[in-house]
Amino acid sequence: MTARQYETLELRFEGPEPEGSCVATDLRAVFSHGGEARTVKGFYAGNGEYRLRFLPEKSGDYTYRVTGEALPEPVEGAVEVLPADSGRHGPVRPDGTHLRCADGTWFHSFGTTVYGLAHQTRALIDETMDSLAASPFNKVRMCLFPKHYNYNFNEPESYPFLPAAGAAKRDFPPEETPVYPHFSEKRDDYWDVHHPDYAFWDRFEARMRQLQDMGLQIDLILFHPYDRWGFANLSPDDNLTYLDYLLRRFAAFPNVWWSLANEYDLCFNKTMEDWCAIEAFVAENDPYHHMLGNHNCFQMWDAGRGNITHISWQTKQPYRVAELMRRFGKPVLIDECRYEGTLPEFWGNLSGQDMARAFWRATVQGGYCTHGETFLPGTEMGDKATGTGEPEVVWWAKGGRLNGTSPARIAFLRQVVGELPGPLEPLDGMTSVLLGKSDPEAREVTDTAPGPLRDFFHAVLRMDRRERDHFIAAEYEYAGHCGEDAFLYYKDDQCCACADLQLPEGHGYRVEVLDTWEMARKTVLRGARGNVRVDLPGKPYMAVLAVREES
Amino acid sequence: MTARQYETLELRFEGPEPEGSCVATDLRAVFSHGGEARTVKGFYAGNGEYRLRFLPEKSGDYTYRVTGEALPEPVEGAVEVLPADSGRHGPVRPDGTHLRCADGTWFHSFGTTVYGLAHQTRALIDETMDSLAASPFNKVRMCLFPKHYNYNFNEPESYPFLPAAGAAKRDFPPEETPVYPHFSEKRDDYWDVHHPDYAFWDRFEARMRQLQDMGLQIDLILFHPYDRWGFANLSPDDNLTYLDYLLRRFAAFPNVWWSLANEYDLCFNKTMEDWCAIEAFVAENDPYHHMLGNHNCFQMWDAGRGNITHISWQTKQPYRVAELMRRFGKPVLIDECRYEGTLPEFWGNLSGQDMARAFWRATVQGGYCTHGETFLPGTEMGDKATGTGEPEVVWWAKGGRLNGTSPARIAFLRQVVGELPGPLEPLDGMTSVLLGKSDPEAREVTDTAPGPLRDFFHAVLRMDRRERDHFIAAEYEYAGHCGEDAFLYYKDDQCCACADLQLPEGHGYRVEVLDTWEMARKTVLRGARGNVRVDLPGKPYMAVLAVREES
Repeated sequence: MTARQYETLELRFEGPEPEGSCVATDLRAVFSHGGEARTVKGFYAGNGEYRLRFLPEKSGDYTYRVTGEALPEPVEGAVEVLPADSGRHGPVRPDGTHLRCADGTWFHSFGTTVYGLAHQTRALIDETMDSLAASPFNKVRMCLFPKHYNYNFNEPESYPFLPAAGAAKRDFPPEETPVYPHFSEKRDDYWDVHHPDYAFWDRFEARMRQLQDMGLQIDLILFHPYDRWGFANLSPDDNLTYLDYLLRRFAAFPNVWWSLANEYDLCFNKTMEDWCAIEAFVAENDPYHHMLGNHNCFQMWDAGRGNITHISWQTKQPYRVAELMRRFGKPVLIDECRYEGTLPEFWGNLSGQDMARAFWRATVQGGYCTHGETFLPGTEMGDKATGTGEPEVVWWAKGGRLNGTSPARIAFLRQVVGELPGPLEPLDGMTSVLLGKSDPEAREVTDTAPGPLRDFFHAVLRMDRRERDHFIAAEYEYAGHCGEDAFLYYKDDQCCACADLQLPEGHGYRVEVLDTWEMARKTVLRGARGNVRVDLPGKPYMAVLAVREES
Repeated sequence: MTARQYETLELRFEGPEPEGSCVATDLRAVFSHGGEARTVKGFYAGNGEYRLRFLPEKSGDYTYRVTGEALPEPVEGAVEVLPADSGRHGPVRPDGTHLRCADGTWFHSFGTTVYGLAHQTRALIDETMDSLAASPFNKVRMCLFPKHYNYNFNEPESYPFLPAAGAAKRDFPPEETPVYPHFSEKRDDYWDVHHPDYAFWDRFEARMRQLQDMGLQIDLILFHPYDRWGFANLSPDDNLTYLDYLLRRFAAFPNVWWSLANEYDLCFNKTMEDWCAIEAFVAENDPYHHMLGNHNCFQMWDAGRGNITHISWQTKQPYRVAELMRRFGKPVLIDECRYEGTLPEFWGNLSGQDMARAFWRATVQGGYCTHGETFLPGTEMGDKATGTGEPEVVWWAKGGRLNGTSPARIAFLRQVVGELPGPLEPLDGMTSVLLGKSDPEAREVTDTAPGPLRDFFHAVLRMDRRERDHFIAAEYEYAGHCGEDAFLYYKDDQCCACADLQLPEGHGYRVEVLDTWEMARKTVLRGARGNVRVDLPGKPYMAVLAVREES
């Protein structure tokens, strides 16, 4: 038997359907390679079939031993894992404040959002996949559970669980459920989480494989509050049972990330204790330590927690990326910052310019950004969102076609970043280094400043921390660098007719002016060093890139 | 003798030049009218002439009595003050959070900035006056002292004071002085503030009269830190002597406002005690209680102080206008928020769109905004800044021609606001009411919210005050109303294809869609009441205005 490094290896066994819970089967395998062993749990896939999945991260000879009640006797075997195919880089994991694939390749995340991707008709899903394949995006945020929210009220083809034995059959009329049901105190026992609907899981999984084959990372949202079926108010035990099955099936996928929630803090029926239990369960039951984050509406999930690999942040505050990178030493992903579109809702009506700008602002500091598209159905742009004839298709909710102007600009940015000699670190401006600092922390910086600057800083410190942060935020200069090898300045809304750079004296730099909106770049200086001025066209969305020349 | 209500009345007397100080003459007059009396101080104007100025705010018969050592004996007389000419509305003063002229006319401030207006050549000043006359601006911020700063290094024709007797004549080469000299501890005794240079004051005053006749308010900046002559580091006593002379000459001008400083907190050699003394002196020696503010770089001057009539704020935080209106109960003027132009400096490279946007954001909440224009000299736009042939002319520094795209849009806004039935008050969004509130203050609001909303609010309150303020700021909805008579919603950067309004049920409204950039307006609904939806074109800078129809 052979397998491929970074690709899911699967063993299948026939056996009787588990009695009681179909989730908690004791089937497991130990995979051994070069003195290292990893245990993985199996799952029941329906129709008398058990499966075990393993993700080999090294090439070479593996042996395995499978045990469990479902088997008449333990099964042993060997697998030859061939070196990775080109284009297969293995799971993404944090490396300091950046992201790297298992093979060492940097992963520059350029995400998009299609919450209900997998819960649409096949025709619409196919259209979405085509759009993704042609897009600059390499990560997609999508929900395991179906979604009940504005522009997203359609019924899914199936549900992840069967109804509880003896439960009266329920319908789920969208018009009878508000977008945010008031869940507090309420538990729903309609679903039997111990009996998955295998058709649902097979279908969902097929979409995940498809995305994987396209090279996309799946930021899989495990819970969300927009719900009329009761999935948002399972009991705490049921939450973990659901996760147990999900992790047994999906953890060996190389391209999966765990997003505990979309807007965890709007899940009004889950307590902080519930979330901590969920976080711990996922971390403990994922043998591969995939990316693990939790997405907020208001208060950012505590990124200092040990199991949390990165900041998955809903925010309109891109100026805080560097501050958070420094505070937590983890990658910062702005996983929601408003979407390009024309909805009346505040979060859904960014111009293409402002969506692209959000990516530039986050990216030049060494952070990452996530896209979404939301043109109002019933308008000209809204009606271009699909060719399937389905009503009310909004990319962010269901997929379809990308019609916005930002994806091309994001592609341009991705190309620029891909050519850099390494990941970007934030470059401080005069005041930005004080952002988020307490008074004593700020004074440590300012008291060591040279004479004239110290007077300025003392004036800055007359503002309390809140005032100071507002001030710094409003004039944040977005810039980053790769050591002394490259400097990237994003001029944002500034319509400068020139820019003054302070480059190191010790090397010569090739300086390029980039029009991030027109997607044009032009080398304007060679051998530049020290203080140099470059002409700019006096319009917004320009960037300047200085890359060290070979000496 | 006759005079006009709201116009400066002047008495002139011959007399010997004062011995010692030419400022502290004891010449004074008491003007009486209908049982009310007001004392005004006179000033020496040079060439053996003393003057006394008085601003009558009522029409009718006044008597006066003038005394002082310079006169052989007291002089008495009578003046018939005729009712105001049309177009003369009297001094602007605060009325709650708004501004009203003495005759009751609302004053909607639309300011601009020409710091060195009066210190340029006559040809350039004439050009500036022509530009102002054709502009939408009705207030101009300008400095009494000449200014030494980037794009503004030229020598003025004269200085406000003579050098001290016996002082070695000084030159002021700009290239030898940094933009911000490090003034701490240093005092300059070169100037004799007790001996004004009357040519300077006559010339400056002529410009003030010209602006007055054009209907502009003069926001006169009394101190500033950009200086190479020593005016920024007079002694505390000298500061007050200078102010004494200034107030005797200018306080009776109907259109003057006192701006204690531009960027008071960058005047590194003045202490807070100095500023408090300056503030008190101006307030005590201005019989007319003109508008009195103090403009900051970093920390806003305390608007709670009794003498302060309004908030003269440098900020890039227009979302805080309503918060400050409520906290201080005074008018909020964003007197600096970056300028339209192409300078490399952050504060000087707004697009015309963003400059106009700053006005809309401040104005719809019931605040006021101030413009400036800063195209880089040596560029095509920069070289259009004057037809006089003078080098390096930037509007914000020296005046000249207005070439930006924002003034036309500001004119459009001024027209819209001028047609409203009264001044605007801020209209709260769901979270904006929490901006700037402490936790206990916020809980007072949220604990009384209806059930489902309360859950949201509790999630919002998981953010500490700093996080909460950042959050609210980033999704601030700019809107205002005149009671139930008018509602004005500015959609800012939102590219909505529609907007949902919640109008009162009790009246019918005419609803207009305004394209604030194209300066177009169109009535889209009549008799609208309650919840209504209006179509919008899915692009930024749109506004919606609902005005109550006559019943």
